[in-house]
Parts: sequence; C-alpha cells; structure tokens
Amino acid sequence: MTKTNPGRFFEDFEVGQVIDHAVPRTVSGGERALYQALYPMRHALYSSDEFARGCGLPASPLDDLITFHLVLGKSVPDISLNAVANLGYAEGRWLKPVHAGDTLRASSEVLGLKQNSNGTSGVVYLRTRGVNQRDETVLEYIRWVMVRKNDTEAPAPETVIPELAKAVAPEDLVVPDGLDFSRYDYTLAGEPHRFGDYEVGEVIGHVDGVTIEEAEHMMATRLWQNTAKVHFDATFRPDGQRLIYGGHVISLARALSFNGLANAQMVVGLNGGAHANPCFAGQTVKAWSEVLDKAETGAPGVGALRLRLVAVNDASVGELRGEDGKYLPQVLLDLDYWALVPV
Amino acid sequence: MTKTNPGRFFEDFEVGQVIDHAVPRTVSGGERALYQALYPMRHALYSSDEFARGCGLPASPLDDLITFHLVLGKSVPDISLNAVANLGYAEGRWLKPVHAGDTLRASSEVLGLKQNSNGTSGVVYLRTRGVNQRDETVLEYIRWVMVRKNDTEAPAPETVIPELAKAVAPEDLVVPDGLDFSRYDYTLAGEPHRFGDYEVGEVIGHVDGVTIEEAEHMMATRLWQNTAKVHFDATFRPDGQRLIYGGHVISLARALSFNGLANAQMVVGLNGGAHANPCFAGQTVKAWSEVLDKAETGAPGVGALRLRLVAVNDASVGELRGEDGKYLPQVLLDLDYWALVPV
Amino acid sequence: MTKTNPGRFFEDFEVGQVIDHAVPRTVSGGERALYQALYPMRHALYSSDEFARGCGLPASPLDDLITFHLVLGKSVPDISLNAVANLGYAEGRWLKPVHAGDTLRASSEVLGLKQNSNGTSGVVYLRTRGVNQRDETVLEYIRWVMVRKNDTEAPAPETVIPELAKAVAPEDLVVPDGLDFSRYDYTLAGEPHRFGDYEVGEVIGHVDGVTIEEAEHMMATRLWQNTAKVHFDATFRPDGQRLIYGGHVISLARALSFNGLANAQMVVGLNGGAHANPCFAGQTVKAWSEVLDKAETGAPGVGALRLRLVAVNDASVGELRGEDGKYLPQVLLDLDYWALVPV
Repeated sequence: MTKTNPGRFFEDFEVGQVIDHAVPRTVSGGERALYQALYPMRHALYSSDEFARGCGLPASPLDDLITFHLVLGKSVPDISLNAVANLGYAEGRWLKPVHAGDTLRASSEVLGLKQNSNGTSGVVYLRTRGVNQRDETVLEYIRWVMVRKNDTEAPAPETVIPELAKAVAPEDLVVPDGLDFSRYDYTLAGEPHRFGDYEVGEVIGHVDGVTIEEAEHMMATRLWQNTAKVHFDATFRPDGQRLIYGGHVISLARALSFNGLANAQMVVGLNGGAHANPCFAGQTVKAWSEVLDKAETGAPGVGALRLRLVAVNDASVGELRGEDGKYLPQVLLDLDYWALVPV
Repeated sequence: MTKTNPGRFFEDFEVGQVIDHAVPRTVSGGERALYQALYPMRHALYSSDEFARGCGLPASPLDDLITFHLVLGKSVPDISLNAVANLGYAEGRWLKPVHAGDTLRASSEVLGLKQNSNGTSGVVYLRTRGVNQRDETVLEYIRWVMVRKNDTEAPAPETVIPELAKAVAPEDLVVPDGLDFSRYDYTLAGEPHRFGDYEVGEVIGHVDGVTIEEAEHMMATRLWQNTAKVHFDATFRPDGQRLIYGGHVISLARALSFNGLANAQMVVGLNGGAHANPCFAGQTVKAWSEVLDKAETGAPGVGALRLRLVAVNDASVGELRGEDGKYLPQVLLDLDYWALVPV
Repeated sequence: MTKTNPGRFFEDFEVGQVIDHAVPRTVSGGERALYQALYPMRHALYSSDEFARGCGLPASPLDDLITFHLVLGKSVPDISLNAVANLGYAEGRWLKPVHAGDTLRASSEVLGLKQNSNGTSGVVYLRTRGVNQRDETVLEYIRWVMVRKNDTEAPAPETVIPELAKAVAPEDLVVPDGLDFSRYDYTLAGEPHRFGDYEVGEVIGHVDGVTIEEAEHMMATRLWQNTAKVHFDATFRPDGQRLIYGGHVISLARALSFNGLANAQMVVGLNGGAHANPCFAGQTVKAWSEVLDKAETGAPGVGALRLRLVAVNDASVGELRGEDGKYLPQVLLDLDYWALVPV
C-alpha cells in the first residue's frame, strides 16, 4: 500500500461529492507581514488597525487574497494534483473578513463533469468554501480544472455542466458587517479618487513593474501550503523551469493596481479569471485595470467597482487578444472582480 | 584588544565546562509563518490552533524543528565558529512544546574531548539545552563537532569520550502534557495512515522535490540567528559557493515527509544524524523515510515511530552507501528520530 | 485625468509645506521575524522580551531601523519618486520605542529648497516625522534629496538652506522611559565590552560578510512599503540592474556590526549618512565601525557611543576616500549615529 497521496484523477470525481480538505490553518500577523514583503501592497485598510477602525471594522483584516490563496491551497492535494490546466473561476464571494487568530478550513463540492473527447482527461467543476473556527463561510468560489485520467478505460461520466453566472450580481455582494466609508480618510489611503471619479470603460495603467524571483514565488506558494510539485521542483518540467502559481500573479497584479486604485480597498467578488499564459521567474510583471461596472451597496459611503485586472509580462496597456481571439503571449492574467470603494 | 568574537578553538574547551549562550529569543506568529513560507510543511498540529486543541494542547506549538534550530543557532558563536565538521547528534529529546510568546535561551556542557592524531584539531562532545522563560528545559541533545586548534602547540587534553545511547529509549521519550490522539481527525490531518499501518522496515518515498534558492536558505539560517560566515558570504569558500546550513536540509526533508507521514506529527526524539554531503543552492532535494522501530507511549491514543529520514539531491529512494561504506554523493542527510503518531 | 501618482517634482515643493504621507501601518511579530530573517541581527534587546524587561522596558521593541524604514518608506511616494539622488541625513532622533501592535503614520515638512544651476533639478530639504497611534512622535530626521523638475521652465524658488547640526548633541538624545542598564546581562547580550572599553578613534572590523540576493532586498524594501520602481523592475535601468534601497545596506551593516558592538543596543541618533555608491545583488557586504565620540546620559547605567558605520563591497577596513576626496568605489555607506550602551 502506497502511503503517499497520488491525488484524484478525473474518474475519481462524481457530481455531488463533497471533499473536506486537510490542514486547517491559524493565521497571525506573520502572514500579514509576509504578504507585505512578497507583494507591493499598500491598501490602508489592510495595513493599519487604526484605519480599519475608522472604517467600522474591529481591526485590519488579512488581505482578501490571503484568504483566497489559503482556501485554494488547501484544495490542491484533493483537486488539482493531476490537473492539466486551471480553466476558470466564477461566482466568487468573500463573506466574512479574516483576522489574525482565525483558523480556516475548506471543502469542495463537485458541481459538474465533462470528459474531453480524447478520453484522456476531463473538466471538473467545483464550488470551494473556506470556513472559519466559528463555522462561518468566509469565502466561496467556483473553479473548473482539467484533470488527467489515470485509467483511460474508465467510463466517461454523464456530462453535467453547471450554469455559471457571468458575474456576481451587485445585490449578491456581501459588505462586511459595520463597514462604513462615510468618514473615509483619502489622505491616509493615498489617493483622492472615489466612486464617482471612475467611469465604466476607463482604463488605468498602473505604471510600476516587478521582476519576479524564484525564491519569492516559492515562499508565497508554500505560505498558502500549496505544494504542487511544478512550482518548486526545477527537475519536474522538461524545460527546467518552475511554473509560477497563478495566484502569485493575481496578488502581484492586485498590489500593483494600488497605483491608480488605492481606494478599491476590499475584494468582495470574483466574477471570472484566466491565467492566460504561464509565468516564470525573470519576467517583469506590470498591470492595468479597466472599469467594467459600478454599483451601489446598502452600506454607508460604500460603492462597488467591477474591475478587469490584467497582468502582462513587460508590456504596458495594450491588446489582450490577437486576431485569432487567443490571448497574446505577453498576457499573464485576465481577472474580473468586484471591489468596495468609498463613494 | 580585538572586540570581535573569534570563537572557541579546540584547546579552549575542557570537560565539565558549561557555556551560557547569548541572545535569548522571543518567538511569535512571525516565526511560524516564515517557517511555513520556507518549508513545504503541512502538519496540522503545527498549522492550526483548533486542531492542536482537539489533541489536548492549549494552542498550536511552533514546529519542533524551530526549537531545534533556535537552540543550535545560539550555540554556534560559542561552539562551532571554528568547526571543521558537524559530526553527529545523539540523545536528543524535546521536553516541552514552545508557543508564540515564549523566550528561549541555551547553554552547553562539554561532555568529552578527543584531539585528532594530526594535532591540528579535535572532537568536542557537548550536551546543549534550550530553556524557556519559566526555566523549563524544552530541548536537549548531544552534538559532536570537529574544531580546529588555534595554537597547534597547545597540549592535547585527556581523551574523554562519552557513552552515547544508540537511540533514545521509548520510555525516555516525553509526551507533551495533555496530548491525546484518541479523537484525532484524520481527514483534517490529511492522511488515514496510523500507527498500526506502518511496519518496521517499510520505506516511503515522499515524491515531492524542492529546488533550493540562496535567498531561502540564508533567510532561514538568519531566522535562527545562526551567523556562521560560510552560509552567507560567497567570497568565503574558494569555490564561491555558500554552504547550506545542515538544519535547512533537515527541515526541508521533514516537511517533504508529510506526503506519506502526515500523521507523524510531533518530533520528540533525535537518535542520530549525519550531514552526509554538503548541500548548495540549485540542488533539488527529495526525501524518503524508513520505519526503524515502533513503540507505545502511556498517552491516550499516542504511539511513537522511530524513523530514518534521508534527504537526497535529485534522486529517489536508493542506496545510502557505496561499496566502500561511505555515503553516496547524492545523499545529503541521514537522520534518525522519533515522532508521535495516532494509534 | 490620470489616476496614478506621478510623484512631486522639484517645482511642486515649497518651503513650509507639510505633507501627510499615506498608508498608516500596524506592526506585529511578523515584521520582527522578517527583520531577523533578512538581516543577521542579534541584538538581545530586540530579540527577547525577557532581556528587554531586564533593561526596564515593557517588552522588546521592534528594531529602531524598522521604524526608520517604515517612516522613510511612507515618504517615498510623496518625496522621492522623482529623486535623482538621496543626498544626506541629519538631526535624526528616535523618541519612543515602537512595539508590536503600534500603528505608525508619517508626515514631512519642507525646510529648504535650492535649484541646481543647470535648471533641471533641485535639492529639497525635509524634516520627516513618524507618529504612533497615541500621536507620539517616535522618530524625526532631516533628509535632503535631489529631485527632477518636470517643467524646466518653472521659475526657481528662493533658495533656502536650513542650518543643520553636524551631529545631534548628546543632551538632545532621548533615552526611552525606564531604560536601565545597571543590571545588564553581558553574557546573554553576547559580548563583555562596555562603554569604558571603547576609545574615541577606535576602529572595529566586523569580520562577517553577506552576499546579497535580489529576493532579499526586494522583500525587505516591500516590507517597508517603499515602492520606488528602481528597486523592483529590472527593465527600468538601462543596465538591467535593480538598485538596492540604501536602507537595506544600512540594516545589513548595522546587523553585521553586532560582532564587536553587540552592546551598542539602541539607535537613538542619526547624525549623517551618505550612500556612497550604488549597491546591487551579488555584492558581498562587509562593515567596519569607528568610535567618533562618547557621552553620558542621565539614565542609570546608560552611556552613548557616536559611531561611524561603513559598509563596503567585499573589502575590509580601509580608506574611505581617494585622493580626489571622493568615496572609493567599494564604499557603499558612510553612516554616523548614536547608540546606547551599558556603562
């Protein structure tokens, strides 16, 4: 009997299955400090307890993407160890802020399955949930991944493709309890631009760039206890390169977006996302954003911006796709999310 | 008078001498988070306060190897600044878990001395103890190192070689107060294998590998305040390489062993260990384990496994030694330890 | 309207102007642990709560240079985004220790302006203050930087050059409330040398060296939320090199100075400093110190040493300047500070 975890293959999933992921995790100021060391993030709400209190929260939460990475990281050994590709995200919602001292665990439910026509792999749709020590769901999102079959003779399952919302509807966004931007301090936040200053269709180039080092993306990925070999073992891929965890690029781009979107404080919805091309150490990542939509929320002084966040390899704002409709090679990430901003 | 510390030479040690090491250290969630960023560790007991409470502990302790590295790091300026080689470990026991907020200090007692026949160096045997702010010993172990003489004319001391136990006897292992694995959650821990599933002689290849970066091993080694030049200064060795602290390889291998030994939660005994070959950045470290022995403990649901943990440079399970009895060049570490597992 | 921050140009400053810097920051044990991982620091007062209590403080503060880096980092987006060079420091004083849980913000006042004769840039003199959540100033210092003009046609401002003290007078140094070195533990601190053992003019070579990695200086600089492009983006400079933040070299040199100045515990005054030559990854940094002055303080057992701290690229103690009076190319840093030592 082998004791190591081979991961699930496509034929091991069935619709309706619920998988409880291992390794609950207590977070502290250590995760926060490391996040600040690994990404050029400067959002005031995630940097200062005082600023967060001024916005009606009990203390500064951990960055919403820390929650995302931790929850996704827990799902890797059960879901994507034999993944060929991470295909997309939908219906992501942050439901409760996570604070130092909280303990997170995660589970996933299989929503859909579709075997590929070549019979060697298939697409698995899952809803993953992160839960804290009070059994409150802090995050949920749908992800679909292409997973290899181990036994190519295994029969194809009935095809079930879940209906996915194009975007989280503004009325489904959850504003954290108590959040109040009516006395928001724009000077301390770093920029004067508020809800009314952003126009749908507006594009913001975030100016700054970061050249990625191997040590950094590996430390980040391990911090989320995501242990997929391909990120750490230079002997694993024939080209000797370590593939950078897609979430590292998400956090890098989100942090770079501070410059122009400093007040897009809280990430509350994930509408979709594509890891358009692989990312490797040595690349210089830059980012630009496009305002896709705007919405009001019931909370005092709090509006929501729907944003496209694009990360590119050493390039400025430009086309996303070529004439063939495919992402251009310099595009690393095309993410669609909702953030809360002061009105 | 020179103000810098030249370190002790072989002739500066005498049997019975007790050396109090400098720089006491308070630990926090920061050390825990960095440990998780530097090593692919996923043991649930060291990741989650909730899981630790379910096992009868007040909160999740810091990884036992953090304690080991901090205590050993403190001893370096007094013991091994002029060391030629770190020869072995014996009789190591973890006596109390270390939690965030604890402050550790360390001291060493010289147990034995043996000058080498060439008269230029000798072997020093020491018992090092780590103590917390309540004067409780948290760890003790014997280490022997070969140390250079400064004055080769200094007379050889009387040879004293301490008798060292081949292994810590199971009845001498200390189970932390309150530890109770009788309601152990195997799902959250990540693997179903328990005490009864492991057979003496069984070998487990841990599958994953990590390619080491300079920034990572230096950050780790500094975190333990181990400041031996050879780990940090690329101009120190003629070959321009920075020798990786042997403890970095221990932690890397132990973390990799999660895959197959996820329930070998707590390290409680160190029977022996050899840093078989030097390790440098760029190497890809993999690990395998062999079950050497099994024992019961008095604690509810708690058994002990004696494990050999082998780290290799880009190789799988294989021979340890060549026909000449020497370690093969790809072997980096051969460690012998006791871990606590649920029954 | 562009939403990104272009930074202030020389013509945007005027004497008397007060600029409140963005992004207040709460610190924790995470920053402390990262500082220990990034720099080979071992000062006992900054490592152990118990040791700090033995010196009359409520707990171990964060390293004084963490305070410096955080405050300076906050000022970068407002002050030095268009800087050509960081020219000097003066009149720096640490006024209150910073502890885990504190929240820092910063502001700067323009003290002087002098346009360069070529009309394309000018020198801005500022006093920057760091303030905690109780509105107590924790640090203040004067810095002057050469900043580009955006509009070279903008009229030159009236030249105002503030009078700067050559050094902080000993009577202006602020000893933290309660600090008492009369029961100082030299064994735990790591060296026996006290106030009386240091002579003015004495030079101490600190022996150890550290070869710098890109990942390390970027993580450090981001941790201080200093986001100047030149430190992170390898495509920014024509030579493809990332310029290392000068403060990284300060912390590296100060940490290396432990070996010979282990008891120079607290940094309380910054008299001056020059980043003599740029520093890049791959360089091996060593350090030496010269005792410039000594002074008593009113506090029990507490003396002050005025120290020159020099960082060099792979060289030992030697000349600072060539025959032309300019810094020799291997000199990276020439810093002048006051530290508190036990008498």
